[in-house]
Amino acid sequence: MENERSRSRRWFLGMGAAWSAALVACGAKPETPAAAEPRALGAAVSPYGSRSKFEKTARFFNQNTKVPLEEASSRTPLHDTYGIITPSSLHFERHHSGVPELDPAVHTLTIHGLVERPLVFSVDEIKRLPSVSRIHFLECSGNSGGEWRGGSTESDVQRIHGLTSCSEWTGVPVATLLRECGVNPSATWVLAEGADASKHDRSIPMKKMLADAMVVYGQNGEPLRPEQGYPLRLLLPGWEGNANVKWLRRLKVMSEPVMSREETSKYTDLMPDGTARQFTFDMEPKSLITKPSGGDALAGAGRYEVTGIAWTGRGRITSVEITTDGGATWDAARLETPVLPRAHTRFNYSWKWDGKDALLASRCTDDTGYTQPPLGDLIKVRGMNSQYHNNGIQTWKVASDGKITNGNRA
Amino acid sequence: MENERSRSRRWFLGMGAAWSAALVACGAKPETPAAAEPRALGAAVSPYGSRSKFEKTARFFNQNTKVPLEEASSRTPLHDTYGIITPSSLHFERHHSGVPELDPAVHTLTIHGLVERPLVFSVDEIKRLPSVSRIHFLECSGNSGGEWRGGSTESDVQRIHGLTSCSEWTGVPVATLLRECGVNPSATWVLAEGADASKHDRSIPMKKMLADAMVVYGQNGEPLRPEQGYPLRLLLPGWEGNANVKWLRRLKVMSEPVMSREETSKYTDLMPDGTARQFTFDMEPKSLITKPSGGDALAGAGRYEVTGIAWTGRGRITSVEITTDGGATWDAARLETPVLPRAHTRFNYSWKWDGKDALLASRCTDDTGYTQPPLGDLIKVRGMNSQYHNNGIQTWKVASDGKITNGNRA
Repeated sequence: MENERSRSRRWFLGMGAAWSAALVACGAKPETPAAAEPRALGAAVSPYGSRSKFEKTARFFNQNTKVPLEEASSRTPLHDTYGIITPSSLHFERHHSGVPELDPAVHTLTIHGLVERPLVFSVDEIKRLPSVSRIHFLECSGNSGGEWRGGSTESDVQRIHGLTSCSEWTGVPVATLLRECGVNPSATWVLAEGADASKHDRSIPMKKMLADAMVVYGQNGEPLRPEQGYPLRLLLPGWEGNANVKWLRRLKVMSEPVMSREETSKYTDLMPDGTARQFTFDMEPKSLITKPSGGDALAGAGRYEVTGIAWTGRGRITSVEITTDGGATWDAARLETPVLPRAHTRFNYSWKWDGKDALLASRCTDDTGYTQPPLGDLIKVRGMNSQYHNNGIQTWKVASDGKITNGNRA
Repeated sequence: MENERSRSRRWFLGMGAAWSAALVACGAKPETPAAAEPRALGAAVSPYGSRSKFEKTARFFNQNTKVPLEEASSRTPLHDTYGIITPSSLHFERHHSGVPELDPAVHTLTIHGLVERPLVFSVDEIKRLPSVSRIHFLECSGNSGGEWRGGSTESDVQRIHGLTSCSEWTGVPVATLLRECGVNPSATWVLAEGADASKHDRSIPMKKMLADAMVVYGQNGEPLRPEQGYPLRLLLPGWEGNANVKWLRRLKVMSEPVMSREETSKYTDLMPDGTARQFTFDMEPKSLITKPSGGDALAGAGRYEVTGIAWTGRGRITSVEITTDGGATWDAARLETPVLPRAHTRFNYSWKWDGKDALLASRCTDDTGYTQPPLGDLIKVRGMNSQYHNNGIQTWKVASDGKITNGNRA
């Protein structure tokens, strides 16, 4: 076996040159021990499994703050996740007053306001209604915001961009619930309110509520996780995270927005002329190279497999392109299937690195024809007063020693 | 609020009659307390989340056996899962010698036999190769086998059919690995061997290996769970579970099958004439109503939302039909998107129950034109010597008091 092992190492060191254009470079390794071969019976079956003790990947958050804080958030390890489904245990968090503990036997959803029949639903009643299941991303509108004012060369993809995740959601169309309540024709907005201590709320246009909004109770096949709004949340496919109200307790049908704190002093975009863009719900086309990315070190010139995710709140991703020269030239990446509307899309790209300084980045285009812009283009239009909705291109700087850092200001 | 609550209960009791044809019946409830409204800050963010303490759903297994046994298995709670992604913690298990604890820093995959260049891959090396991500079901060929000889009226969908689950898998095409090893033209089979104590192994046709087989390290966005083969497993989309060798340590390229224990004395189908069907890898089209199902009790006549899953190892599900009269008439169910090849497909159907005895069942058709048969048709051809590969129709018997039992022998 040792002969084969040595041969494998030589093959990995040499590949990309002789045998294959599709394979990646790999650093030489010290001798490894022979593979363990268990001879005793292993562990028993279990009622509810957990991950291997060898796996330690975690959400990132500031360990030194007093939690739960107003600003509490945790970020998905995008460099360590695969495919398009984010493990529920690693879905990003953003709480305004911590994670409430809600008993599903007691929690209710009230629908009232401009309706003929105000109704109160138990969680069990919601679960008995006709359901739909959909795979959709969520992204905080503040994701990547630190880059707006310069970012840091120390940053990695998790810290900069980890406020996005993607799940399969199961629930009831809001349209189904509203139809049964009998909506007054003058109704154009719906207030959504959570049961957390701060009663987080947002005004949502009726048009979105009737189009594809869902009251969700399922995430990746099982009940919503507590930090995602257990037992009920609002899901607005493609819209900024904070509008997808968690721990949903109330929908009030109205003829105008309530102008709550979260849509006036927060989650608006102050423009250079002093006016504010308000109700900027859509999350625009965005892509990220997640591997290799900031903090990684390439072992030397050769083939590397580049992977990442792309998404758009406006529909479906149609293409992802890769540059290795800071945007001078672009080449098509391979999209993994399925490519779903308002969902993360996984892309892969095989890169032959020549060992010199490189600027590595991706950009995506969606089916509305919108192509992800450089951050500079966004700043030109929106100025420096706000840092929400940064869907600008993320550049990684690869130095000749293989070290990768944030290259957005390179 | 209490007025709205009372009104809601009246609405649920009456619905299906006056206001909506799309909604379900729901039993009356005693007064419920007002919804809890937390006023204190909730829990902090966390590195790796877990489910709510109110949720207890678990895999089913025989609690009284000495584990791990040769026959160890646990079953997915299909009646309590949503959509098409099975939570990794609830993926069914089937182990021949328990779950080994393998260190990914030490574990290797050897490829040898009829190849020009035998190679040994570390897990890290596998992860650096070009990857693909795909959503596919797995099903044990023994799933639903108990029904072949009569089953039990006490059984529920988890106990009868819980040896199927569906995940997003990430890994490297076997074709990529074999190409680099240089396969001898005479090679037609590949032995796949696991690193569990019993070295579980199966011979796999080269054609399948080159078509869509993967060496998988990712499941639902994170590393494979230990009971699913951590750190590496073989994935053969659409093929019986036991051939998808877990804890994969070796692929040996050959010109004929090795005729291992698992493909001679086990996992073959003994026919009435005494011959055995061997290498029956394809899992054929199958569907199940998961809710309502055995053990449930309907509250009374009215609308009920019927849901379930369908899948086929041969391609894509094209339709699911529902009968409520034991097969005399059939009506189309609604398929949820995405409908993916060799993946679970979720279906939903709105049923107006008249309160009388009913026989509720689903049947599916795939894109090869194959329609799921009654179990009796399978028995006519295959006899009673074997109970593998039962893809027959599952009927649930609904009594006039609302109680639901296994109706396969009704």
